[in-house]
Amino acid sequence: MKLLEQAITERGKVIGSDILLVDTFLNHQVDVSLMQEIGKCFAERFRAEKIDRVATIESSGIAPAAFTALCLEVPLVIMKKQASRILTGDLLATTVRSFTKGTQYDLTAKRDFLPSGDRVLFIDDFLASGEAAFGAKKLIESAGAVLAGVGIVIEKSFQSGPERLEKEGIPLYSLARIASMEDGKIVFR
Amino acid sequence: MKLLEQAITERGKVIGSDILLVDTFLNHQVDVSLMQEIGKCFAERFRAEKIDRVATIESSGIAPAAFTALCLEVPLVIMKKQASRILTGDLLATTVRSFTKGTQYDLTAKRDFLPSGDRVLFIDDFLASGEAAFGAKKLIESAGAVLAGVGIVIEKSFQSGPERLEKEGIPLYSLARIASMEDGKIVFR
Repeated sequence: MKLLEQAITERGKVIGSDILLVDTFLNHQVDVSLMQEIGKCFAERFRAEKIDRVATIESSGIAPAAFTALCLEVPLVIMKKQASRILTGDLLATTVRSFTKGTQYDLTAKRDFLPSGDRVLFIDDFLASGEAAFGAKKLIESAGAVLAGVGIVIEKSFQSGPERLEKEGIPLYSLARIASMEDGKIVFR
Repeated sequence: MKLLEQAITERGKVIGSDILLVDTFLNHQVDVSLMQEIGKCFAERFRAEKIDRVATIESSGIAPAAFTALCLEVPLVIMKKQASRILTGDLLATTVRSFTKGTQYDLTAKRDFLPSGDRVLFIDDFLASGEAAFGAKKLIESAGAVLAGVGIVIEKSFQSGPERLEKEGIPLYSLARIASMEDGKIVFR
């Protein structure tokens, strides 16, 4: 997606060799017009997959996922990084480790919001080692729903996530694919 | 907003006397088509206020705030509940206490994303005692920007937030105003 690659090049910032800071347009200050275009691209790619609902993880995935769900005319489900006191009912939970950040969190969702048999499109801002996507997959499948596809805004193609998803036969569509970020220079695949 | 009141009545659930669970359409499973209508309503009400950017707090405010920002054709700023390791630069921070939840968190935002002189519209899912709105106000004003208005999806009119904002002369627009929730029955103002 040209518009996105342009935003990454002009407004992104590489920190070290593996962190791409895109807080000027994606996850802190948000270019909502770009998010709308991103939503349209994901919807176009996955329309044939008969998606019943879109899922994402709070909070950076919400804006692109909301516009995707709007285009596909399906509900959005926001998976939570921590259980709320008022999150009651039958809860699904798994632990997600972030290798990039060196942290881990409990990913939770209400079973009711991932109905058995539903085809779910998972949308996220980044794909690196794929831990978040596989955490989402675990929740979706433990509810009896199906992970029908993964839509990623920025894929770090040099990390293991893309290959891991491919091995599992999960359709992956990344709008920007970064081959390397050596010496602060972003090279797209 | 009739459509919202209908959603609250049909899909909301009162827990105790002060908690309204709306995770079926607002903050866990999200009715994005309703969020788009909410965004249009906020944009229409605040268009004359010459808004330069919309701000919200992660993560339940993001969906309605994103659609509002899109309608107003301005950027969205997501204030963070905890500082990210990669959130670098000149950071603004304040502590927000949630009386409803009995918790507190550090609200942070990059100064760069609240430029001095900008007129900011703050959007949130709930208004209760107003602690979140006043936390946002503090960050906005400490950056030299102006809180030009507050747009709330669901106002608990029986709590202190609405009166506190009025006393400060801050334009408040709530799409649903709940007068009481006694015995599980929602009464709109």
